[in-house]
Amino acid sequence: MKLYSYWRSGTSYRTRIALELKGIDYEIETVDLREGAHKQPAYLEQNRQGLVPTLVTDEGTSICQSPAIIEYLEEYKPSPALLPVLPEDRATVRAMAAVIGCDTHPLGNLRVLKYLKAEFGQDQAGINKWAATWMIPAFETLETLVLNNEHEGEFCFGDTPTIADCYLIPQLYSADRFEVDLSPYPKLLKVRQACEELKAFQRAHPDNQPDAD
Amino acid sequence: MKLYSYWRSGTSYRTRIALELKGIDYEIETVDLREGAHKQPAYLEQNRQGLVPTLVTDEGTSICQSPAIIEYLEEYKPSPALLPVLPEDRATVRAMAAVIGCDTHPLGNLRVLKYLKAEFGQDQAGINKWAATWMIPAFETLETLVLNNEHEGEFCFGDTPTIADCYLIPQLYSADRFEVDLSPYPKLLKVRQACEELKAFQRAHPDNQPDAD
Repeated sequence: MKLYSYWRSGTSYRTRIALELKGIDYEIETVDLREGAHKQPAYLEQNRQGLVPTLVTDEGTSICQSPAIIEYLEEYKPSPALLPVLPEDRATVRAMAAVIGCDTHPLGNLRVLKYLKAEFGQDQAGINKWAATWMIPAFETLETLVLNNEHEGEFCFGDTPTIADCYLIPQLYSADRFEVDLSPYPKLLKVRQACEELKAFQRAHPDNQPDAD
Repeated sequence: MKLYSYWRSGTSYRTRIALELKGIDYEIETVDLREGAHKQPAYLEQNRQGLVPTLVTDEGTSICQSPAIIEYLEEYKPSPALLPVLPEDRATVRAMAAVIGCDTHPLGNLRVLKYLKAEFGQDQAGINKWAATWMIPAFETLETLVLNNEHEGEFCFGDTPTIADCYLIPQLYSADRFEVDLSPYPKLLKVRQACEELKAFQRAHPDNQPDAD
């Protein structure tokens, strides 16, 4: 498979984690967002929205949108599973992912931050405040959800990584960039520590990408 | 089942559509966002994030986050299916849903609009411009995705509604509220027309909710 990816993009990062956890062979095709490579005709043929990531499957099908890609990977290669077995448990894990994927990450997207600068004249302090406004309640929610689910373990849900961890780790990386204080979330930090010990998370890390600064 | 819902919330609306399409019996418990009912301790026990919707299952489990609820409903009652059979097709439909669910709807959320007003002094014109900035590329993408998938039909994907339609219809409703011109998207408007003829979409419509103005 081939993944169109940008090293620092949170949605690329979460997709790389899922691919690595699944043990799927894939090559990275870098898309430099800073140089506008995502708006070039060749890339738009793969991804009409002009966003990363895009997964090109073995059969040459292009799949856009990281939530769709990650669910696809779970169906394509069910083991190791990134979702638990029971529907209610799967819903808990998917809800954790959506707290990040819907309510947090999209508000800190590059195109949104550009708008805040250009239209509302925001400087870095204003951007950091904006980012923290959406990250803090999400981390508070996740800290409680992780602590209070019946499957408390090393990871967000139980003792093996799930898609919730695929979403959480890149968001914590983003929090560091925007200088959000993570000390009120000791459980999330412990989850991060457990993830950092795994090769899959190490290999997917932005710093270990071919296009990293 | 019981759905905690607010009539005008797009995420409540999309969840009601899914419940109605599935033919699942449910009762509505209204949560008045304008009166802050979502921040009351009783509701926070159901939904730690203080957002709508929340689904309470037959067994009394609370499920938060509409994407997690909708996937749960698909697993709980597979027929009528709201996702196609083939993994690649499922990915296409889920990607359409995520274009709305991740890249569009969260930016027009009530809490975000409140921030734009309070922190950046935006008036209704500024808010409308902001909303249009994110809706227009999403609708352009969806118009192309719907027209160019091999399963073009009455709905977003083929001749029966899928979760993509559950997400699209509330977003078009929101577009009307923010005065976004929909005439460049004739295919999406045709899909809306097909949906409007179905009882499920009619029953889920904001105007037909017990808490509607």
